[in-house]
Amino acid sequence: MKTATEQFKIIELKESVFEDNNRVADKLRERLKTEKTFLLNLMASPGAGKTTLLVCTIEKLKSELRIGVMEADIDSSVDARKIADTGVRAIQLHTGGMCHLDAGMTEQGLNEFGSGELDLVVLENVGNLVCPAEFDTGSVKSAMILSVPEGDDKPLKYPLMFSVVDALVISKIDCLPYFDFSVEAVRERAKKLNPDIEIFEVSAKTGEGIDEWVKWLKKNVCDWNLID
Amino acid sequence: MKTATEQFKIIELKESVFEDNNRVADKLRERLKTEKTFLLNLMASPGAGKTTLLVCTIEKLKSELRIGVMEADIDSSVDARKIADTGVRAIQLHTGGMCHLDAGMTEQGLNEFGSGELDLVVLENVGNLVCPAEFDTGSVKSAMILSVPEGDDKPLKYPLMFSVVDALVISKIDCLPYFDFSVEAVRERAKKLNPDIEIFEVSAKTGEGIDEWVKWLKKNVCDWNLID
Repeated sequence: MKTATEQFKIIELKESVFEDNNRVADKLRERLKTEKTFLLNLMASPGAGKTTLLVCTIEKLKSELRIGVMEADIDSSVDARKIADTGVRAIQLHTGGMCHLDAGMTEQGLNEFGSGELDLVVLENVGNLVCPAEFDTGSVKSAMILSVPEGDDKPLKYPLMFSVVDALVISKIDCLPYFDFSVEAVRERAKKLNPDIEIFEVSAKTGEGIDEWVKWLKKNVCDWNLID
Repeated sequence: MKTATEQFKIIELKESVFEDNNRVADKLRERLKTEKTFLLNLMASPGAGKTTLLVCTIEKLKSELRIGVMEADIDSSVDARKIADTGVRAIQLHTGGMCHLDAGMTEQGLNEFGSGELDLVVLENVGNLVCPAEFDTGSVKSAMILSVPEGDDKPLKYPLMFSVVDALVISKIDCLPYFDFSVEAVRERAKKLNPDIEIFEVSAKTGEGIDEWVKWLKKNVCDWNLID
């Protein structure tokens, strides 16, 4: 078995306080377009199942796409280890206590992967429904996960997050019998905030709905990278 | 049925950017000591069950203590409504997008309750495991909830939160059969970060463990307020 140091690199991020984040984010997207790399910013509460969904997604796509994952956490490397075990490239980003990633921090991670070597990079943002919604990371698309145990009132309480993402993945739907959670209420509340949002219902445990999510992601990667 | 406006007040908070937060927090604790009011800062991820635990706790204590609850949210008033339905005093604090409460914001809420009218005030902080851990709200004690569906790796990923609280409530333990969650691992990881932390295992659904948590809270309120 490989040690952590052999499997993936840990990067201690520095905050870029002097630059305008939106400008850095736009420049990063231009670079990604040139290099034919699609960057997805994946956000959610702590424990919503970001890493688990990613592992499922990677298993479906790793034979067709060159994939890299940047795991952003305040501390620990448990997520990067799980991703590295799938065989794709993984980097652990330590935010030094920061509650979100900005475009400059995202770029520090991307630089570690080298230029144009990957078709799809996923940034797993810090577990937080508030702050990451306020910062453009330079990603091409963004998605959020809402897990059934968190409750169907979350679009009411964290409206910005539901407003800024391209896709909402409702996860752990195998748990629906045990929780008072209305998928219809979430759909309605999310669509009210964000009429164009794509909504998926998935269970990493049973595999339900994973194919639809993976199909959406793959189509977006191919469109951006001009792959037929 | 009362309307929201009759049941509870909504306060739009202003951030106090010019004052030193720790100084404001210490002053607020002095005031609380004089007024014989115990303030608990309750923190957790979105959807961990803060409001549900509070409703259970209020039902057990409202005949003995005068209780008030401040519900901090970025938006919506669903939580204040649930609390007001228990018959205790409730205030909804809107943070204007802010991801945490500081002592100045907490004081704005407390002022609405008047002076010395309550034995116990609970501040339900914004759902977030990162930012609220960094700000002293002026509370006498603080507690966090970790729900079983979030996973047992959370002390590894959000160490500051587990380090600063006086009590950890592991919630939704009725869900243990459906999730891969080790209570022992959480206990060990939390104690390593914070040897003095008090840990409770509860289910608001079955009522398991609620009495132990309520007993701890009541003892702290009585000690602070010099009630026998």
